[in-house]
Amino acid sequence: MNIVLVGAGNLATNLGKAISRSGNQIVQIYSRTEASAKALADMLGCTYTTSLDELVKSADLYIIALKDSVLKEVSELLVKGRENNLFVHTAGSIDMDIIPASRRGVFYPMQTFSKQREVDFEKIPCFIEAAHDDDRDLLKSLASDISNSVYELTSENRKYLHLAAVFCCNFANHCFRLGEKLLKEHGDIPFEVMLPLVDETARKLHELTPQEAQTGPAVRWDENVISKQMQLLSDTPDLQHIYELLSKSIHHDKL
Amino acid sequence: MNIVLVGAGNLATNLGKAISRSGNQIVQIYSRTEASAKALADMLGCTYTTSLDELVKSADLYIIALKDSVLKEVSELLVKGRENNLFVHTAGSIDMDIIPASRRGVFYPMQTFSKQREVDFEKIPCFIEAAHDDDRDLLKSLASDISNSVYELTSENRKYLHLAAVFCCNFANHCFRLGEKLLKEHGDIPFEVMLPLVDETARKLHELTPQEAQTGPAVRWDENVISKQMQLLSDTPDLQHIYELLSKSIHHDKL
Repeated sequence: MNIVLVGAGNLATNLGKAISRSGNQIVQIYSRTEASAKALADMLGCTYTTSLDELVKSADLYIIALKDSVLKEVSELLVKGRENNLFVHTAGSIDMDIIPASRRGVFYPMQTFSKQREVDFEKIPCFIEAAHDDDRDLLKSLASDISNSVYELTSENRKYLHLAAVFCCNFANHCFRLGEKLLKEHGDIPFEVMLPLVDETARKLHELTPQEAQTGPAVRWDENVISKQMQLLSDTPDLQHIYELLSKSIHHDKL
Repeated sequence: MNIVLVGAGNLATNLGKAISRSGNQIVQIYSRTEASAKALADMLGCTYTTSLDELVKSADLYIIALKDSVLKEVSELLVKGRENNLFVHTAGSIDMDIIPASRRGVFYPMQTFSKQREVDFEKIPCFIEAAHDDDRDLLKSLASDISNSVYELTSENRKYLHLAAVFCCNFANHCFRLGEKLLKEHGDIPFEVMLPLVDETARKLHELTPQEAQTGPAVRWDENVISKQMQLLSDTPDLQHIYELLSKSIHHDKL
């Protein structure tokens, strides 16, 4: 399968590498930023361009891995003159129908991508959607080449999946960040001391549900600890507010 | 060292096992709940009691691993008649001075304990404090027998450490729980699909700081996605409020 990859960010880089390794061929990379386009093209051994006009006309699949805010504009430009080709985007929260082509779809690998880290794509769940059955089969086949967990999912349910991922990844990570700040400001304790706790918090979920796994003052509703901790945060009202809301939410969720 | 363990909950169970394995001797378990006391005593091969009056009078160390709310009352009862013995509690957020004995201290293993899971104590950071230097040395020696990371920390800084742990463990876990609920309610998707994302979110922090590791709509401040996700939560105002606060907090924390 000849594939054009539109984008050279974290997701595009990780996806491009996984597709190449699977024996499918990326023939061209597009990025507005030449350095990014060239770096990824060199890595994958293909050509690149910084101009949408110069993209090949007849690839089997165009994967648009760009930030959500430019998806509409870029996909309109891309589809023009290529009306019979298959286009997919990789965005968890965006409807398939943002792409103005009959042969449109979604290829959403649910993971947190950082350029510095190579992820094991085999374990990443990929959520597939397509307007036509044969395109869906093609996407499922490509997804199965690079991942062991491939699911079909409608745009409507994918929105909630993506929202759940925001909670499980971005918001959980921000809780780690807030902990890091507290350690730095009180005793200058390195965040490394938290890693065994962070690791166990994640690892537990392979055996217990998040609700079963919950511990701490909020689930016990230990008002003494909670009110003292609220006090410790009195100089940082935003943080105090987050503490209060999350504690109450945990309490109301008790088993 | 002859040790009495006061408590038979999650922390006491895990700590008792680790101490036994290290060659130090637990001589007696106390718990108000006979079944818990007996279960742990059988596991460790020692005696147990459900009455504080029946606790041995002359152990080298009394470890009080009870919930925070009963610490004051129980330690007062315990110390009476044993004024020259050494007592420690295991609570992250409680001052050492809650124990009304001259030889008092704290032995805080920072981890999330569930009875069902055995944790690898060697990797758990233990934070030590004592009123007397020789007791501190004794506690450090015991802690070093069971853990590779032993730190001294004052009660004042330990309060913030414990607060940081609430963010890094309890609050992060609640974010996983909220994600699980969203999946269940929209498409009945099993939480297992989130595990690769959760694992990577934790694993990343061995290479990147939480701030560097942040991804998603809030850090990009993608207002389009954020406002759509706020809409998806309009039937659950508490959840919507948490979404809004955490997104703003991430945004204000941008690199």
